Amino acid sequence: MKALVLASGGIDSTTCLAMAVDRYGAQNVTALSVSYGQKHSRELESAKAVAMHFGVELMTIDLAQMFAYSDCSLLKSSDKDIPEESYAKQQEAAPGPVSTYVPFRNGLFLSAAASIALSLGCETVWYGAHADDAAGNAYPDCSESFVDAMGRAINEGTGGALSLVVPFVTSNKAEVVRTGLKLSAPYHLTWSCYNGGDRPCGKCATCIDRAKAFAQNGVSDPAMTY
Amino acid sequence: MKALVLASGGIDSTTCLAMAVDRYGAQNVTALSVSYGQKHSRELESAKAVAMHFGVELMTIDLAQMFAYSDCSLLKSSDKDIPEESYAKQQEAAPGPVSTYVPFRNGLFLSAAASIALSLGCETVWYGAHADDAAGNAYPDCSESFVDAMGRAINEGTGGALSLVVPFVTSNKAEVVRTGLKLSAPYHLTWSCYNGGDRPCGKCATCIDRAKAFAQNGVSDPAMTY
Repeated sequence: MKALVLASGGIDSTTCLAMAVDRYGAQNVTALSVSYGQKHSRELESAKAVAMHFGVELMTIDLAQMFAYSDCSLLKSSDKDIPEESYAKQQEAAPGPVSTYVPFRNGLFLSAAASIALSLGCETVWYGAHADDAAGNAYPDCSESFVDAMGRAINEGTGGALSLVVPFVTSNKAEVVRTGLKLSAPYHLTWSCYNGGDRPCGKCATCIDRAKAFAQNGVSDPAMTY
Repeated sequence: MKALVLASGGIDSTTCLAMAVDRYGAQNVTALSVSYGQKHSRELESAKAVAMHFGVELMTIDLAQMFAYSDCSLLKSSDKDIPEESYAKQQEAAPGPVSTYVPFRNGLFLSAAASIALSLGCETVWYGAHADDAAGNAYPDCSESFVDAMGRAINEGTGGALSLVVPFVTSNKAEVVRTGLKLSAPYHLTWSCYNGGDRPCGKCATCIDRAKAFAQNGVSDPAMTY
């Protein structure tokens, strides 16, 4: 059994990678990271470091062309600032997708992963979406209804050759971290912050979520102390 | 209402384009063609000519990187020959997806279209899949079950902002042509043949299907007489 794991260099996908390597062995796992016009490439460096840690092959693809017209605040193509508050607070002001939602990004990443996975002879694609990111439809492409439909699209559209595995779709981020800690996931190598730089900003929504997930497990974030 | 139409330069997507222009007006329609490592670029020239005919904007994206490891016979990356027989005959020898099935190609195209459509402020993405291509699972990414799941993935993953329109999912190719003839679709500008060159080969599966669809409408194929 071979697996392709979407790997962003963050907590969630690194935990998926730890699970896939634990289940199939590093030689049967490929990590896939995506350059998509992000304002910084710090997370791609982390994806590389994480893949090296596990001894899995890393492929990197470029999908920036598909977001050239987007005004999402995560992208170079936008001059919007990245908000310095939690997702919940952003949604109090404006319900629905947040300004860091990249248009159908995860659908596109999963489709690209499916195309590549079939060519590589993989039977599964792994995706680290979890319920906290889907809350209030902040990221609709992390929701259970999206994951269910996308999983069926991938299975049907490949003639049953490929399945989507989304282990945390009904879990919160603290549960993701709990799983990763048990598997000794290399969280010290990961990067979540929406801003680049030498250290995480601690102010953006993903920094806030990450800190909370470690605190709920009673441990400090190794990427903050490393 | 604005629409993005996947445009390959062939019969089916050209008919979709005719329908979308008829419904929304050319100024509200964008055509999207995809370079994906095809052995020839003849169909992309046709997509351009068709878009010019309708006076709609044409965008072209490059997704070849996602198929670099595929051995699909349509692609430059493969040295397999394109079969010179109908889909039905190919499937008698080997059931399931045919050798011209590009791994999850249409799922990837639709996802890319969804990302771009959202950025452009479109509410619909149009896709020319029809039942003949899905028969016997020759192209599982044209099947009704795939289209249904993918449509829901696009709708859910965009927070309800975008819908997939697939007018021919339960129609055969003859019915597609019948619709296009009524709308004066510029079939003389289209290209379906899997091989490049100055004229269609007449021998590959898509040439066979195309000839049959025109014959069933009692008309000659204008691309063969042009």
